[in-house]
Amino acid sequence: MTVNSRPAHPVMLGQNQYGKAENRVVKITRDGATHHIKDLNVSVALSGDMDEVHYSGSNANVLPTDTTKNTVFAFAKEHGIESAEQFGIHLARHFVTSQQPIHRARIRIEEYAWERIAASGADSQSIGADEARHSFVRKGQETRLTQITYDGSSWEVISGLKDLTVMNSTDSEFWGYVKDKYTTLQEAYDRILATSVSARWRFNWTDDEQKAPDWEKSYEQTRKHMLEAFAETYSLSLQQTLYQMGSRIIDNRSEIDEVRFSLPNKHHFLVDLEPFGLKNDNEVYFAADRPYGLIEGTILRDGCEPKIPADLTNL
Amino acid sequence: MTVNSRPAHPVMLGQNQYGKAENRVVKITRDGATHHIKDLNVSVALSGDMDEVHYSGSNANVLPTDTTKNTVFAFAKEHGIESAEQFGIHLARHFVTSQQPIHRARIRIEEYAWERIAASGADSQSIGADEARHSFVRKGQETRLTQITYDGSSWEVISGLKDLTVMNSTDSEFWGYVKDKYTTLQEAYDRILATSVSARWRFNWTDDEQKAPDWEKSYEQTRKHMLEAFAETYSLSLQQTLYQMGSRIIDNRSEIDEVRFSLPNKHHFLVDLEPFGLKNDNEVYFAADRPYGLIEGTILRDGCEPKIPADLTNL
Amino acid sequence: MTVNSRPAHPVMLGQNQYGKAENRVVKITRDGATHHIKDLNVSVALSGDMDEVHYSGSNANVLPTDTTKNTVFAFAKEHGIESAEQFGIHLARHFVTSQQPIHRARIRIEEYAWERIAASGADSQSIGADEARHSFVRKGQETRLTQITYDGSSWEVISGLKDLTVMNSTDSEFWGYVKDKYTTLQEAYDRILATSVSARWRFNWTDDEQKAPDWEKSYEQTRKHMLEAFAETYSLSLQQTLYQMGSRIIDNRSEIDEVRFSLPNKHHFLVDLEPFGLKNDNEVYFAADRPYGLIEGTILRDGCEPKIPADLTNL
Amino acid sequence: MTVNSRPAHPVMLGQNQYGKAENRVVKITRDGATHHIKDLNVSVALSGDMDEVHYSGSNANVLPTDTTKNTVFAFAKEHGIESAEQFGIHLARHFVTSQQPIHRARIRIEEYAWERIAASGADSQSIGADEARHSFVRKGQETRLTQITYDGSSWEVISGLKDLTVMNSTDSEFWGYVKDKYTTLQEAYDRILATSVSARWRFNWTDDEQKAPDWEKSYEQTRKHMLEAFAETYSLSLQQTLYQMGSRIIDNRSEIDEVRFSLPNKHHFLVDLEPFGLKNDNEVYFAADRPYGLIEGTILRDGCEPKIPADLTNL
Repeated sequence: MTVNSRPAHPVMLGQNQYGKAENRVVKITRDGATHHIKDLNVSVALSGDMDEVHYSGSNANVLPTDTTKNTVFAFAKEHGIESAEQFGIHLARHFVTSQQPIHRARIRIEEYAWERIAASGADSQSIGADEARHSFVRKGQETRLTQITYDGSSWEVISGLKDLTVMNSTDSEFWGYVKDKYTTLQEAYDRILATSVSARWRFNWTDDEQKAPDWEKSYEQTRKHMLEAFAETYSLSLQQTLYQMGSRIIDNRSEIDEVRFSLPNKHHFLVDLEPFGLKNDNEVYFAADRPYGLIEGTILRDGCEPKIPADLTNL
Repeated sequence: MTVNSRPAHPVMLGQNQYGKAENRVVKITRDGATHHIKDLNVSVALSGDMDEVHYSGSNANVLPTDTTKNTVFAFAKEHGIESAEQFGIHLARHFVTSQQPIHRARIRIEEYAWERIAASGADSQSIGADEARHSFVRKGQETRLTQITYDGSSWEVISGLKDLTVMNSTDSEFWGYVKDKYTTLQEAYDRILATSVSARWRFNWTDDEQKAPDWEKSYEQTRKHMLEAFAETYSLSLQQTLYQMGSRIIDNRSEIDEVRFSLPNKHHFLVDLEPFGLKNDNEVYFAADRPYGLIEGTILRDGCEPKIPADLTNL
Repeated sequence: MTVNSRPAHPVMLGQNQYGKAENRVVKITRDGATHHIKDLNVSVALSGDMDEVHYSGSNANVLPTDTTKNTVFAFAKEHGIESAEQFGIHLARHFVTSQQPIHRARIRIEEYAWERIAASGADSQSIGADEARHSFVRKGQETRLTQITYDGSSWEVISGLKDLTVMNSTDSEFWGYVKDKYTTLQEAYDRILATSVSARWRFNWTDDEQKAPDWEKSYEQTRKHMLEAFAETYSLSLQQTLYQMGSRIIDNRSEIDEVRFSLPNKHHFLVDLEPFGLKNDNEVYFAADRPYGLIEGTILRDGCEPKIPADLTNL
Repeated sequence: MTVNSRPAHPVMLGQNQYGKAENRVVKITRDGATHHIKDLNVSVALSGDMDEVHYSGSNANVLPTDTTKNTVFAFAKEHGIESAEQFGIHLARHFVTSQQPIHRARIRIEEYAWERIAASGADSQSIGADEARHSFVRKGQETRLTQITYDGSSWEVISGLKDLTVMNSTDSEFWGYVKDKYTTLQEAYDRILATSVSARWRFNWTDDEQKAPDWEKSYEQTRKHMLEAFAETYSLSLQQTLYQMGSRIIDNRSEIDEVRFSLPNKHHFLVDLEPFGLKNDNEVYFAADRPYGLIEGTILRDGCEPKIPADLTNL
């Protein structure tokens, strides 16, 4: 930035970033007739020495967003896609090291899982007894997420998931709460507890000198521990369940130092059937949309600093 | 309707229907500590002797939509939910037979599938070795659908699914098509074929005297045949694949006389990597959103009349 | 179709259609520094002699969906976009008359309205006193719709709109309805009536020999009559309001013979404030999402046959 | 929190908050036959002395989310809704001052605008010549937003909007950018510039002792300045337009110290019509969905600290 070009009025430029968002790249790897698939949605955000493009519109320091898109597709060929995390690391490193004005790159990736279609016995293209070699059905459960940030010296990797809907049909209570003049809620001693899990976890890998985690295994295990903790916690509050889910991850996955959850309480209200002469013995529920309780919290390894923002974004 | 109350101007009332839409009923069935779940979204549409409510606003023939909602929840208790189809049959019969002005009931149901959370070894609440007894994760793949229509004498049952996304990463070609002055498309000899299946199939069960199909097994088998046909068809056009999917169902499921598909061609375009000095050997694709090809068609058992509307609705 | 190529098993092909959906074409017309904008989403569906592509995969009769896309963009240049209806007529005629195997074309169009940004006094690019010449803000209210169908001899034009949300905060009652064993609803003598209007209307223009309506004026006037009827009807039921909205159109617009509405009753429930010692004198409402009443009906000019399908689609 | 109840393993609880989200409150104010409407979506998030509910599930400090919902509806009666901001201030103050364990309240509000339906001349319920007294149509353009945070001593108010779609059909260029080995983009000297504005602005009102802004007028004027700046900037980059939009607000609205924008570049690509022998003289564009450029930035009054998070959330 040249001071001369800055407008005279008392306005400052603060944090800014730019790039191409939502590049939908699909990579097919062929192992003979057996194909493997990676299906990603990659968003690039770059920042650095970008004052002038804001003040005067000069693009002399601007690598076009179109180029960042091209790079995503080219890197899928050049580096392959081992994991969303590894792919994001390649991209972030490239932007920061190849363009002098770019000081920081943040790569966000959504990953969509596919599974093989079960093959009929007569299918000559099947793998072993029961799986098609190059036919897939989208799994459709949670969306896997990662965000890679690189500033030229250290890494921050935050992975996670969203839209994983879970339910315990019993082993949940809610009572003993504060009652003020606006309180009408009845205490509950056996209720449904359901939520759509949005979680982000931060890795303690920050340096190229450290050995990187096995990103694929880490995801699979973290998800497993989270689901087990949800299922196995006898819950007196959704906050307690949240804490157990986070603790289980910190206890079992040494590569993770911090977890943040955003857990909407997907209310299932017991329907009053008495007007119809019927008893509802925890059988018939109305699944409500809005409003919903929203419980958010961070669980940390002792001694670590929290770095995941309190308000989860579309990371 | 009283003729007197009809407005004098030359306007007629045509087809009309009303009811409560999207009743979100969840039914938990407890078998000791082992719970079972049915999760439905039920929409009621009633028609009959309803002229007067349109002309004068008299509600004398109108069962409130609120009552149709109450009935859905009460019936979940009174009849249970064996299957979406059986539940819809109970509801449709009730409205037509219990209210004289109602001549026709149409029940539409969406069903969301859940699977049990895998249990850790230490979990005392697990079923056998590996499944939680009352903890579930939403499957999240396709949404199952059914529509039951009853006019007091005969039944029409159309079931189906939507949002089942599938892909063949090879064994698809597209060439030999018409070329006019607006044609620029290059022929393709090895392409990705992907679609999000929306399908509806009509049962030949129409009468209480007939033995009803096993609705749950029918759904599972129809879905299986459809997926296998998708995977096993070497495709020269999406229309050919559509025809094979429908034929496979008609051939294998004698309870079904008609199938209609709406198949968006979820284009995966091969990315041109040549500007970067790279060869794209059917590896890197761009998954496009809009526009998309849309292929729709009906497959019938020989001699049957088509009854599924050409334009699939939110059935 | 060659009979030989038809599979031997007892399966028939029924109605089928194909084409490119959701072509997002934006046309800018420059009148000096003053620009005009048309923003459409165009979907093409063709049918005709298409058996063979289903049976054998031969594309010999298939104009690619990609070509139908190209045609949409080329026609925006060749014919301009006077109105969505006129543009659809050009396209439908072209496909049916230029390709022998194509016997029927259906063009669906969504139109998004834009208005000019108000200009500041100092703006040299403004129109007259207060409007920018080439700066627009999307209106964001309803989406305008049309569907053109042509079979080579006669036309069917169905236009309409969706997502026009309206509310009367009084002058609505609901009482005098049927009460059965599942009825718990209290009668209401002053309630909010709100809905999100989805409407389709069919023109009686069917032949090139007839003078075509002024499509732009017809839309504007039909929308106006519909809104006025909604506002001015003292309502005893949403069905009565629906009938008045349709009648007003038939009475005032001679070019229209049929109207169909799908009107979700967007419930606004009076909140019970008594537990807090407060009186709710029709002041505070909870806007509910699901379930909702759904009222659908057709209004016709006397003597006309209904042709709009009872289940509105994404037309 | 009792130290004893804390689990022994090395896990800490970090930031946490809870409350009822998306309370859809509609307030009708009657001025004789003339009604006024406020339509809000209110989300409550509380934090404070909440360790124990996470560790042991004790709800002794927890005001139920259901109570926070009741409070929203009761306050609409008790305080009315002058503006979203004022309503949020009432709520935040209440939660922090009435419950000892609650140390901080954050209220997020979305507001949906309505306008009066134009009345026909014959309408006896109209206001003056042309507006209905109690009939409304939802404006449907941007959603207005505010977030109020209170910690018992000082206030933070961040207002804004989302989904305001704007377009300049000319006066936009893009050239002179960095070109690396992945750059293929052609320079543009006359392009469409369109975006869907998401903006948040922070007020410098923080203390009950200060005179509060006129929230309604501030919103209207801020929106106006933003739109004018968009329309009147001859743009060499979307970043330059962003800076001008923010500067215009800071220059004109002394109550605002900081603005942050998230501006997706809604690409409108000129369609290549040459294969069809046609010239596209900046007339026919393809409106693309994904990927899209995403330009984000903060504009500050000189000397102020930025406080709006770099990643806009669903605030």
